[in-house]
Amino acid sequence: MSTDLITHAGQHVRLAGWLHRYRQLSHVGFLVLRDARGLVQVVVDDPETSRLIGGLANESVLSVTGQVVANPQAPGGAELHDPIVTVLSEAIPPPFDLFRPALAAQLPTILDHAPVALRHPAVRARHRVAAALTDSFRASLTGDGFTEIHTPKIVAGATESGANVFPIDYFGRTAYLAQSPQLYKQVMVGVFERVFETAPVFRAEPHDTPRHLNEYVSLDAELGFIDDHRDVMAVLTATLRAMIDGLPERLGPDLALAGVTMPAMPAAIPDIHFADARDLAADGLGDERELHEPDLSPASERWLGEWALREHGSDFLYVTGYPMGKRPFYTHPDPERPGFSNGFDLLFRGLELVTGGQRLHRVADYRAALAERGMDPEPLGWYLDAFAHGMPPHGGFAIGLERLVARLTGAANLREVTLFPRDINRLTP
Amino acid sequence: MSTDLITHAGQHVRLAGWLHRYRQLSHVGFLVLRDARGLVQVVVDDPETSRLIGGLANESVLSVTGQVVANPQAPGGAELHDPIVTVLSEAIPPPFDLFRPALAAQLPTILDHAPVALRHPAVRARHRVAAALTDSFRASLTGDGFTEIHTPKIVAGATESGANVFPIDYFGRTAYLAQSPQLYKQVMVGVFERVFETAPVFRAEPHDTPRHLNEYVSLDAELGFIDDHRDVMAVLTATLRAMIDGLPERLGPDLALAGVTMPAMPAAIPDIHFADARDLAADGLGDERELHEPDLSPASERWLGEWALREHGSDFLYVTGYPMGKRPFYTHPDPERPGFSNGFDLLFRGLELVTGGQRLHRVADYRAALAERGMDPEPLGWYLDAFAHGMPPHGGFAIGLERLVARLTGAANLREVTLFPRDINRLTP
Repeated sequence: MSTDLITHAGQHVRLAGWLHRYRQLSHVGFLVLRDARGLVQVVVDDPETSRLIGGLANESVLSVTGQVVANPQAPGGAELHDPIVTVLSEAIPPPFDLFRPALAAQLPTILDHAPVALRHPAVRARHRVAAALTDSFRASLTGDGFTEIHTPKIVAGATESGANVFPIDYFGRTAYLAQSPQLYKQVMVGVFERVFETAPVFRAEPHDTPRHLNEYVSLDAELGFIDDHRDVMAVLTATLRAMIDGLPERLGPDLALAGVTMPAMPAAIPDIHFADARDLAADGLGDERELHEPDLSPASERWLGEWALREHGSDFLYVTGYPMGKRPFYTHPDPERPGFSNGFDLLFRGLELVTGGQRLHRVADYRAALAERGMDPEPLGWYLDAFAHGMPPHGGFAIGLERLVARLTGAANLREVTLFPRDINRLTP
Repeated sequence: MSTDLITHAGQHVRLAGWLHRYRQLSHVGFLVLRDARGLVQVVVDDPETSRLIGGLANESVLSVTGQVVANPQAPGGAELHDPIVTVLSEAIPPPFDLFRPALAAQLPTILDHAPVALRHPAVRARHRVAAALTDSFRASLTGDGFTEIHTPKIVAGATESGANVFPIDYFGRTAYLAQSPQLYKQVMVGVFERVFETAPVFRAEPHDTPRHLNEYVSLDAELGFIDDHRDVMAVLTATLRAMIDGLPERLGPDLALAGVTMPAMPAAIPDIHFADARDLAADGLGDERELHEPDLSPASERWLGEWALREHGSDFLYVTGYPMGKRPFYTHPDPERPGFSNGFDLLFRGLELVTGGQRLHRVADYRAALAERGMDPEPLGWYLDAFAHGMPPHGGFAIGLERLVARLTGAANLREVTLFPRDINRLTP
């Protein structure tokens, strides 16, 4: 491996990887070989080997044996001398140079050529951030008594409302792709008390914005025997902290390559009630229209993100108590403040990253909530059954994985942190 | 928690859970409280508390404080005395008794009432087996240098062939649900060398058998820089061993509750070439028709499973070298034996559990393979690009999670080990 080359100084080793770059000077050539974790410099003195490599396009796959020599100038502090090179696969030239610090192409071109573009060290490092965060999410919750579940992605009806679902032809019937595991994860609280799932969700939102994807990875958790949404926020905070604190050790040099700016995360994440947040943002933005919105606008969220950093030294801000009218039917109201809920959002650097809250847990409350919204309880019969048969007070949250990676790495568009993004215009690769 | 009650002997504790069962004797009542991990016996002396509990249906949710008293007769070796009981949620009576050793209902009834049925201690224990196996799969591969990936489930075309895909209405266009992450995980070998994914896959097979589901969890891995399929089998064997060896510690008493019979897994899993396996099974079954089959019949697989246990003391058997005609276009041929492939199956107790093998890695070989099968290369352009731009020799495997859990627990039907199964007739719950 490229990363532990220095530990083999003086030895003969075999490395394999991709021809990242080759430069031929007058008497010596420098081959940079890329493997899964980094780059290795190979010094080529032998003219025949020079001719062999010089005749290959970048991205050809090579096996190289040689002697490891310490060299503080080389990436990783060591390089390979006296190489014997075997060609495993010849390549045609890549559509853009992978050895430059950034890909010199527009995003659509990069996405069209994802199988090659993803090999760029800085691009792929972002996907290692995603892998590390997902792994820490699971490890933290498993350590906290949560059980992993696998819920169906093909469902008979829309999860939360009738809008924005993809219909499937299911053996001649119409089924839908699940917008979230919400209903199933709640039911599973009745089985395991605390559950999580890391799986794709599907939203047929016809927006084409940098902040939306039609398929993304949702990191979901749900837990029972809570007092209210604050118990959910406590678990979310601890989980996020474990995810973020784990990045440096898990990623090593890829942390910087991915462009991660470690977030400011004080011992207690600040929180603010929705009504206060709205007033504050409207005042801060000098825009009274914000006062009459039933939700926070993206501009308000950005302003609140800056405010939280300035006033509380935090890149994260909880906004609690969203109005009941803006939250789904399963939302638990705030018992002390009519019209407001025990639902919250977590903003990260001014973008909604997590939605969560306490849910209803009594079947009579569900029936009333559905009736009030004019929703038919019949298709939800199986779900209501769980509550009829005894469910504890519970709540949960869902983290959008791509949004978290984008905010950590400074990517302006979620498509930059998604391996093969799906949007209204893009189905391949 | 129910599981560590004995460590609190002599203390006052608060427990919360479900009313699993209540039995009133003449002067004393026994409440069995169920939480996420087990059962606790609560001794009820107080007549008022007796009346309260006696008036509740099973599955009501309770909070109970009381004193922990060691009692070797009680589950977990301790019980609760002098309880103060608070009702968190009242339930209606469950459709079947959850306190009996097994659910006294037919499978369709059990599946219809999954939100309640899954609470049965033996039923839910099987799903903890699934969670433990998935976690160990990831941990073992991560420790072996693999990177987790998230590939799209909405795809423009069928993954492997045109058959058995679910069409989606994707903003007015037809897209499909991915049958596997095969093409994407191969492409990602070009990025990370070694990758894995644990995600749902979708097969529109119109069979209604105990061995098929239309949505299931696939544990996928793919690795580069192999010599041939034997390197893939070595990783698979090590991964499976870690998954199975980890079960007792991860599950504790749930291992027995789930009905797990730990498999016989010798230091080396036996392997046999397809042609020899077919001859042996035909001979063993006394059925010459098997000799003319291009694949192993379920009867042959069962016979071979018994043979492997008898002759090699192994519940697992690799069958290698399947005929090229029965494997997908990306299959690498056996360079030494025309007509046969470097593809393998792993049988577990006579059932196909894993399919894997070496893949083609040169773009010219792909073009030839597609032409030979009369397949149009155009929709696969993005995939072929990866090979044109340099891919190493590679291969991989896919484990069907539900099949593994079913074979371990002795479940006759995959629906018994799937939280909310999807089949040609079932879309709810």
